[in-house]
Amino acid sequence: MSIIADSPPIPPLAVALGDPAGIGPEIVAKAWEARHDACVPPFFAVGDARSIVAVWDGPLQRIGSPDEALRTFAHALPLIQMEDAGEIIPGEPNMAGARCSLDSLELAVGLTRSGAAGALVTGPVSKAQLYSIGFVHPGQTEFVAERCGISGANAVMMLAGPSLRTVPVTTHVPLAEVQALLSIDLIVAKARATERGLIRNFGIEKPRLVIAGFNPHAGEGGALGREEIDFIIPAIEILRSEGVDVMGPLAADTMFHARARAQYDAAICLYHDQALIPLKTLHFDEGVNMTLGLPIVRTAPDHGTAFEIAGRDKANPGAMISAIRMAGEAAGFRCMA
Amino acid sequence: MSIIADSPPIPPLAVALGDPAGIGPEIVAKAWEARHDACVPPFFAVGDARSIVAVWDGPLQRIGSPDEALRTFAHALPLIQMEDAGEIIPGEPNMAGARCSLDSLELAVGLTRSGAAGALVTGPVSKAQLYSIGFVHPGQTEFVAERCGISGANAVMMLAGPSLRTVPVTTHVPLAEVQALLSIDLIVAKARATERGLIRNFGIEKPRLVIAGFNPHAGEGGALGREEIDFIIPAIEILRSEGVDVMGPLAADTMFHARARAQYDAAICLYHDQALIPLKTLHFDEGVNMTLGLPIVRTAPDHGTAFEIAGRDKANPGAMISAIRMAGEAAGFRCMA
Repeated sequence: MSIIADSPPIPPLAVALGDPAGIGPEIVAKAWEARHDACVPPFFAVGDARSIVAVWDGPLQRIGSPDEALRTFAHALPLIQMEDAGEIIPGEPNMAGARCSLDSLELAVGLTRSGAAGALVTGPVSKAQLYSIGFVHPGQTEFVAERCGISGANAVMMLAGPSLRTVPVTTHVPLAEVQALLSIDLIVAKARATERGLIRNFGIEKPRLVIAGFNPHAGEGGALGREEIDFIIPAIEILRSEGVDVMGPLAADTMFHARARAQYDAAICLYHDQALIPLKTLHFDEGVNMTLGLPIVRTAPDHGTAFEIAGRDKANPGAMISAIRMAGEAAGFRCMA
Repeated sequence: MSIIADSPPIPPLAVALGDPAGIGPEIVAKAWEARHDACVPPFFAVGDARSIVAVWDGPLQRIGSPDEALRTFAHALPLIQMEDAGEIIPGEPNMAGARCSLDSLELAVGLTRSGAAGALVTGPVSKAQLYSIGFVHPGQTEFVAERCGISGANAVMMLAGPSLRTVPVTTHVPLAEVQALLSIDLIVAKARATERGLIRNFGIEKPRLVIAGFNPHAGEGGALGREEIDFIIPAIEILRSEGVDVMGPLAADTMFHARARAQYDAAICLYHDQALIPLKTLHFDEGVNMTLGLPIVRTAPDHGTAFEIAGRDKANPGAMISAIRMAGEAAGFRCMA
């Protein structure tokens, strides 16, 4: 944090509220309440004020532009109002709410791209709701990437908690189809993006990477599967020839305990659950999804809309607070670079 | 522990030392040293005394039969001497040592089967060394099962730590081959054995089981894979119709954090790393491998021979201590039943 304090001031962060009927508005409001205790950097919300008022009775102040946020932040939650999200009932999503969440996201991306906001934080949206209004991207990540002028395929998802960062090489595909998607090129690309992201967003001069094995015991030299020999080891050789500090393939079950985690800055994993099981086992309430490979900093809490508990004051803001803090720190490192 | 204290005395436990050149002798000796502080129940070692003397200078006393162990345990580590293991150099396994580890295992199983020992704890062996002397079983578990007169296929591996127990439905097979091995029957059989094991070995009256999904987000209703629909949900329906308390399929990434773990007694997992990643992430130094489905109690520390650190006084006895304690507690629950 001292690094940030010594740097030029970072513009306030843009936090899109996500679906107005989900827990996004509540956890953003709670993150503002925790600004002192949890060292949350100045931010402003983007969305429909009524979605916050429906679940929170703290001070909320509409602002016309991001530069008003720094003055406001000390005494009220600053918010840029989007067009009306229709009827808002926590826990009951509808199409107007989905439209509002998409508009909020678009504005927040634009403000971050322009430099008016220091980084982008996105609240949870409902993909099913977004698809119902014609959204054609797999998720917010690909939408943000497109708006930043880069291919969604080059946007890399990193899951980060206080003691572990993981990058899944493949994400939302059936486990039985993962093998066919693996390639030397894909692993190399993800590892390169991870190394760059650790340098730019975390200020790590010489990142130390590890790559998990795909099979039990990392394949035991081929006895328990050949993916290590066919894809992972050749990828590691290429990365090392480029000067990347990378170890592996490591047996996936013995690489995530405390002493093992101390040996690396990020773990490249081959499939969704290999990356997500250790991250959420250790850091369920503070997991952050950071997108690497973008010209802007973008983070999100690593959970969904949780419609089933929306409006009941039960949502844990931990992951949202972590997402905002991590975005602020990353913006600080980028300012210094 | 009070339950054990109130029960009839349990015979001392039989602890096979494993490969004499591995860390087995060292961690068994250290477990004896920790008997007071860590509440380690009385046990005797089975193996070549010289493998302990090579790495430990504490009091060791040869005994002729298990009943001498209780008297001896307070002041010396009791040991039943096996035939000479040849030249013993820690870290340098050889065929005589492998022979000795197998003989020790066989005697320890026999003493437990006969009731002279209260439970069986097995130290780490080298499969490669055992294979070199003609051992035809995949591992110690199947050998023990055969000596107990049951099929290796009915011996179920449970991994247990202080806050988590997992049972892998498949174990040492390439990940890409797991799908073809899954069946409703296999999942049902593993869950039944797990329920029985929790009742008999842990004294849990009505065990609560969960079953993990195979795919990301447990398949999202088929969108991310059909194994949940084809195998897991039908298995759960059968188990429920039999009165088993079982939930699932659960998204594997969100089922292992602390609040989630509090909701169940054991998690059935579909493949090796799904069961082992959370267990070893949380409990790397105290993971116990317990075999369910046997007429005897059998545990083992969930790690290998670690030849690379043998004889250097660097081995952590935590998992061996946990294995002996868990075996003693399970023997106690069986005595009461």
